[in-house]
This record gives sequence, structure tokens and C-alpha cells, in this order.
Amino acid sequence: MDGDLKGLGPDGSISFKNLCFAVIGLGVIGGSLAKALRRLGAGRIIGLDRDEATLQAAKEQGLLDEALSAPGPSLKAADVVICAIYPEAVRTFIGSNAVWFKEDALLTDVTGIKGTLPYDIQAALPAGMEFIAGHPMAGREAKGLAMSSEQIFWGANYIIVPTPSNSEGAKAWLHSFAKALGCKHTVEIDPEEHDEIIAYVSQLTHVTAVALMDSPSYNENTRYFIAGSFRDGTRVADINPELWCDLFLSNREKLAAEVEKYIEQLQAWHKALAAGDGEAMKAMMRLAGERRRGLNSDKV
Amino acid sequence: MDGDLKGLGPDGSISFKNLCFAVIGLGVIGGSLAKALRRLGAGRIIGLDRDEATLQAAKEQGLLDEALSAPGPSLKAADVVICAIYPEAVRTFIGSNAVWFKEDALLTDVTGIKGTLPYDIQAALPAGMEFIAGHPMAGREAKGLAMSSEQIFWGANYIIVPTPSNSEGAKAWLHSFAKALGCKHTVEIDPEEHDEIIAYVSQLTHVTAVALMDSPSYNENTRYFIAGSFRDGTRVADINPELWCDLFLSNREKLAAEVEKYIEQLQAWHKALAAGDGEAMKAMMRLAGERRRGLNSDKV
Repeated sequence: MDGDLKGLGPDGSISFKNLCFAVIGLGVIGGSLAKALRRLGAGRIIGLDRDEATLQAAKEQGLLDEALSAPGPSLKAADVVICAIYPEAVRTFIGSNAVWFKEDALLTDVTGIKGTLPYDIQAALPAGMEFIAGHPMAGREAKGLAMSSEQIFWGANYIIVPTPSNSEGAKAWLHSFAKALGCKHTVEIDPEEHDEIIAYVSQLTHVTAVALMDSPSYNENTRYFIAGSFRDGTRVADINPELWCDLFLSNREKLAAEVEKYIEQLQAWHKALAAGDGEAMKAMMRLAGERRRGLNSDKV
Repeated sequence: MDGDLKGLGPDGSISFKNLCFAVIGLGVIGGSLAKALRRLGAGRIIGLDRDEATLQAAKEQGLLDEALSAPGPSLKAADVVICAIYPEAVRTFIGSNAVWFKEDALLTDVTGIKGTLPYDIQAALPAGMEFIAGHPMAGREAKGLAMSSEQIFWGANYIIVPTPSNSEGAKAWLHSFAKALGCKHTVEIDPEEHDEIIAYVSQLTHVTAVALMDSPSYNENTRYFIAGSFRDGTRVADINPELWCDLFLSNREKLAAEVEKYIEQLQAWHKALAAGDGEAMKAMMRLAGERRRGLNSDKV
């Protein structure tokens, strides 16, 4: 992507009207992207989904110029290909279909755990095509096109996860694209650190909620005592076991490390309680309070 | 309280107009009680608070028939004395002032951890006076009379914490009183089990939030990745260290036991992650999901 900047002008804005996009997967994120691209005036939008009813609905909503139920030569028109499908599916899709992509296509994804994906995909692409990983910190608890909305991007952060082989142009393009979607902040981070942070900030917090609900202390009387702290702390305890099992396993070493660090924090509490060490408890609460207030006032 | 049922009629309703109440402490709970008692048509409301400005404000709002800044003979008029002050203050206040109470006064409190309080207080009272412990599962994050509202009781649960020495009459009266306040459900539980449940449902959930914020993984980049699960899981991480340290220490053995059980849950996760045991993870998520859905649909 050294010469052609995919519509990115010197002022940092993208000329959407001259670009053709292919959105692979029209779920909640893919559908939201198609809606945003339509609003942004994209020259052409190709949508691909295995589900015929989804394709039909997307067409009826005027989101697509072309609807595909399988990869094929039409994809050659796409300057930018956005894969809004599950992590392993991204690997398979791009690995098997590079033959259908434009010779200098820019490819990106929206998956929440990266692992070696960005390296593997770039290695599998012909010279001239570039893959740059990223994702919005956005989503919906429910899934599917019907739940999609371009508003999910508004004010969200967009994470760009480049590797050393990514061009400056591709990075600049993804920053501008995220801002055009309505995202408030963009941040660049390498895949390794990305997955570490996700392990802590998202995966661990789902594990802690599940673990709270699973305590052997939970009994028939519990419900009479439940107030805000328990409701908040377990709000994400009811998750899709199949999906989250895959997400956890795909990042299991990093998540295990976070669980370990968290156990250490709890052991410090246990020790302070056993010793009646109020000063130690207060120090832990003061640090947490300071950080949490910083979060509240955070403008990012 | 065997003969006089403090206005409790055979139909389970309380005749408030014939009763004199003393509310000790006009903070968020005490103030809310005074407001509710006024609406319920209490015959007389005496309010006691050490803070003159609070007393003045309560009088101006028409909540009190008599305002006291210290205990004295006026308290003799009170059929029911409700202590809405900190746990240790309840012990001291009742222990030092029984001389001012009506000879057959009914006393109660609203403190969230009971310990040996119900036993100690009853033992310190002259024969004829009865203390029955309880509290609403209600409150506000902010404190003080200005934040009080009788609406905090509406739809809340009220926990009654009797000991074997409490009379049936006192228990029945407190059930009716809670319902009159607008509480939806009342539940009776002994002090030991009460404090165990609070250790799990309230205290542990504050510790888990603090521990999440205190992870050494928290860094400058964390904030860009924060979404609902982290915000929810740390919502109560910013608490008053002095107050909560006292609450934790007053129940430290039971809280330490809950922290231990919670660590065991997390160790099960760590083991499953290390072994790549997806079935174990899914089983933990299924149990949590089932319980959490039960909580959502719970009508209590």
C-alpha cells in the first residue's frame, strides 16, 4: 500500500465515493459497518454472508450494491475487504480466497483476540496485498444484522493492532477510517500486548463474574440480600458458554496469567483479613479508588 | 412485648397514630424512616442527632415533633426506638441510655453486620425491654439527611435478624413495620447466617471490585480497552476506606472464608485454562448462567 492510499487524502480524510468495500459477514459488526459505509457515501458496497435471509434483509435495507453468498470474482472490485467474522474464520477465509482479491487490496478484521493471526495472514497473502488487524471496542450483547447500528461506533475506541510489516499508509488509513465511523479515539498496540490487555480488561472480568455466581455460598436465601454490588459484579455472568470457551482457549496462557495475578490480589486480602491488618486493606482500597475515579473522569 | 403489641392489630396492620417513635441518627436511613413515619401518621416522632444543622433541617422539613441533640428523659415517651447509627454506636448508645427508655420499649436497629450485637444488647437491657435486630436492603451511595427519601424502602427487602430470645410479637411487629414502609419482602434469618450471606453477597463483591482495579496489569493503555464488563465489575471499587475497613474487620472471619471459597473458584478456572479443558469451563459458565438468569427473573 505504498503508492495507493485507498482514498486517504493529505488532510487525513478518506474519499469514500471512490472506494469499493467488501464486508465479509453481516452480523452485528458487519451490518453496522455496512450501514456506516452507506452513510459515508462509499462508492460500492459488496456484502458476503452464508445466510441467505441475512443477505436478503441487507439488500432490502439498501445496504449493499452486491450481495454474495460465497466468495467469487466480484470481490476483485473491492479496494478494502473487512472481515467481520470469527477469528478462525478470518484465517480460513483470507487463506483460501486471496485469489479473488484485488492485487493491491487492503484487508482488515474486527476480531477481539489477535494471537498470531496478523502474522499468519500477512504471510499467506501475495505480495501487494496488506492485512492490518484492528477492532472497535464496540458490540452488542445480542447478535445478528437486526441488532446492527452505525451508532455502536459513535464515541467508541478503535484499536489498531499493527505488526512491524504493516505500512505507514495502512495504519494511517485505519486511523482515519475509525474516525470516519465516529470513533472517538484510536490507539495502536502490538498483538502481544493487545491480547494481554484483553485478557485482563475483558476476559478476566467475565471469569470473575462467573466465579462469583458459582460460589458454593450461593443458596436460596442469597436473593433476598442482593443489592447493587452483587448485581453489577455478576452482570456478565450469563454468557454463551460455547463462544466464550473458544475465546478463552484462544488466549488461554495470557488469561491464565491474569487469573493468577488476580488470585494474588485476593490472597493479599485474605492475609490482611486473617491478620486484622486494617492498614493493608485501606491501602488496597485507596489505590483502587484512585484508579476508579481516574476511570470515571476519563475523557477517552 | 408479650402483652403490648405496639399498635399491631389482629389484621397485621400497625396503628401508627397511637405510637411514639424515637429515631436515633438522622442520616440517610434515619431520615428516610422519619419521612416514612410522618407519612404513615405516627402519633409522635422524636429525632436525635448530634449534628445541630441536621436537627434543624429535619425540624424545618416537618419530620420531627421533638428534636434532641442528646439522650434524655423525653425518650421515655417512645414506644419504639430505632437506632440508625453505626454498629458500634448502637451498642454504646443502648448500653448507656437504657435508663431513658420506656420500661417496655421495643428497640431495633438498621445495621448491616450483626455479629454478637443482638445478644449483647438484649443482655444489657432491663427486663421488659426488647431489642430485635434488622435492616432494610436499601441505602444510598451518598450519605446524610439531604439524601434521605422514604422511597428507598419501596420494593426493597427487609431482613429481620432475631435471636431465640425474641418474642413472636416483636418479630410480627417488625414484619408489619417493614411492609408498612413499602418493603416488598421480609425474611427472617439468624445473626450467624445473616453475616455469612452479607460476607458473600455484599462484602466479597466489594473486595472483588477493588482487587480487579488493583491488578498490576492496570496501566496507561488499559483505559482504551475498557468496556461494560470492566466498568460493571469495578463499579463499587471506589469506596470509603475507613468505613469499609471497619465493616470488613467486624466480619473478618466470615469474609475471609468467602474470599477463600472465591479463590478456589478461580483456581478451578486456572486449572481448566492450563489444561485447555473447555468442558470444565463450559460447565462453570452454564451453572453461572442458570443462576444469573434466575436472579434476573426473580420476583423477590
